[in-house]
Amino acid sequence: MTGTELMKSLPKSKHIPRATIQRLAIYIQVLETLVSEGVEVISSDPLAKACDVNASQVRKDLAYFGEFGVRGVGYYVKSLIASLTHALGIDREWRTALVGVGNLGKAMLNHPEFRMRGFNIVGAFDCDPFKIGETVHGLEVVCTRRMKEKVDELGIEIGIITTPTERAQRAAQYLVDAGVKGILNFAPTRIKVPEHIYVEYVDFFHHLYALAFNITQDDLK
Amino acid sequence: MTGTELMKSLPKSKHIPRATIQRLAIYIQVLETLVSEGVEVISSDPLAKACDVNASQVRKDLAYFGEFGVRGVGYYVKSLIASLTHALGIDREWRTALVGVGNLGKAMLNHPEFRMRGFNIVGAFDCDPFKIGETVHGLEVVCTRRMKEKVDELGIEIGIITTPTERAQRAAQYLVDAGVKGILNFAPTRIKVPEHIYVEYVDFFHHLYALAFNITQDDLK
Repeated sequence: MTGTELMKSLPKSKHIPRATIQRLAIYIQVLETLVSEGVEVISSDPLAKACDVNASQVRKDLAYFGEFGVRGVGYYVKSLIASLTHALGIDREWRTALVGVGNLGKAMLNHPEFRMRGFNIVGAFDCDPFKIGETVHGLEVVCTRRMKEKVDELGIEIGIITTPTERAQRAAQYLVDAGVKGILNFAPTRIKVPEHIYVEYVDFFHHLYALAFNITQDDLK
Repeated sequence: MTGTELMKSLPKSKHIPRATIQRLAIYIQVLETLVSEGVEVISSDPLAKACDVNASQVRKDLAYFGEFGVRGVGYYVKSLIASLTHALGIDREWRTALVGVGNLGKAMLNHPEFRMRGFNIVGAFDCDPFKIGETVHGLEVVCTRRMKEKVDELGIEIGIITTPTERAQRAAQYLVDAGVKGILNFAPTRIKVPEHIYVEYVDFFHHLYALAFNITQDDLK
């Protein structure tokens, strides 16, 4: 059975709640830590505890992707990681392009996890003539106007926006015109794209708001 | 009525779903864009559309915090922002400390939104002797061992971890010992803290996984 055939037997995305996908990332992170600690098998209770969710939630989330637990034994850690990464489609390389080589963009270009997790940043774009041609962490900064050519040449499918807020929409337009299928937006603003393009927002501030809200409530007790 | 009295009349955090707090951040972001475009009043349908949620969800989320809409008119944009920021406890300054002055830490120190949104980074810590004493974006990098002293002196309540993965737990321990009430963790690992400390994780990868998963599903159609 090829990879594609395997994927075809998996449930369609519409059946899987967004929150499950989000928790899957946590499960994978925790399972990888377990592997590095030499743990080979884990039952759902300690796995749930390490992930800050309850055990029935873990079982329910995993059930979307197949039957993994062995009664009286638990989950085989390495095999569960392999199954989950395959189910998510992250057991392959994803070629990505970053737009906006400022402080945050540079930090992302140098972030070891992107390559480690298969999200290879192979293109770096900026519209600032002082940045174009510069080499940042081994990657040459290319003029945003050349995006389509580079996206085709390098087989880029995902764009990462790290521009200032006011340039995010234009960056998104360039990425869409160049043919990427998904966008990860770090700029603190909503962007408008055609319906067939997936957009994910990395919003630090909703996390800070949640902290502020919880602390405020505690202080009033 | 003082600010504290106002807050006391608000519902307790346990009654408000986490997802609502998350969406509130989006509503505030969109409402602020509307203000900058000169919009004074908006009804829930276009507000919902701009936020990528449905109108009944918007009404339900806002209802946790009071009655804001005016029948036949809609929401007064500026007044709604003021009410929501007050309800979240973000209409005041929050003093924060950043631990780990690498690429990502430097990008955060220079990120204009933190100060703009009242989350003022007033302390920068690192354990690298080559970084200690250096001034980064106007802030002197202080030795992590001096954290307690600085947190007390500067009235810091929230810690931001931007260390490499393997140093995140130690950074968290320093922050907890120094007396912060909440932690925003950018390092891609779970951290262990006492129950009364709030932790939020900024995880780029779950967003990338969601993109990869959705694109993979589309490609199979």
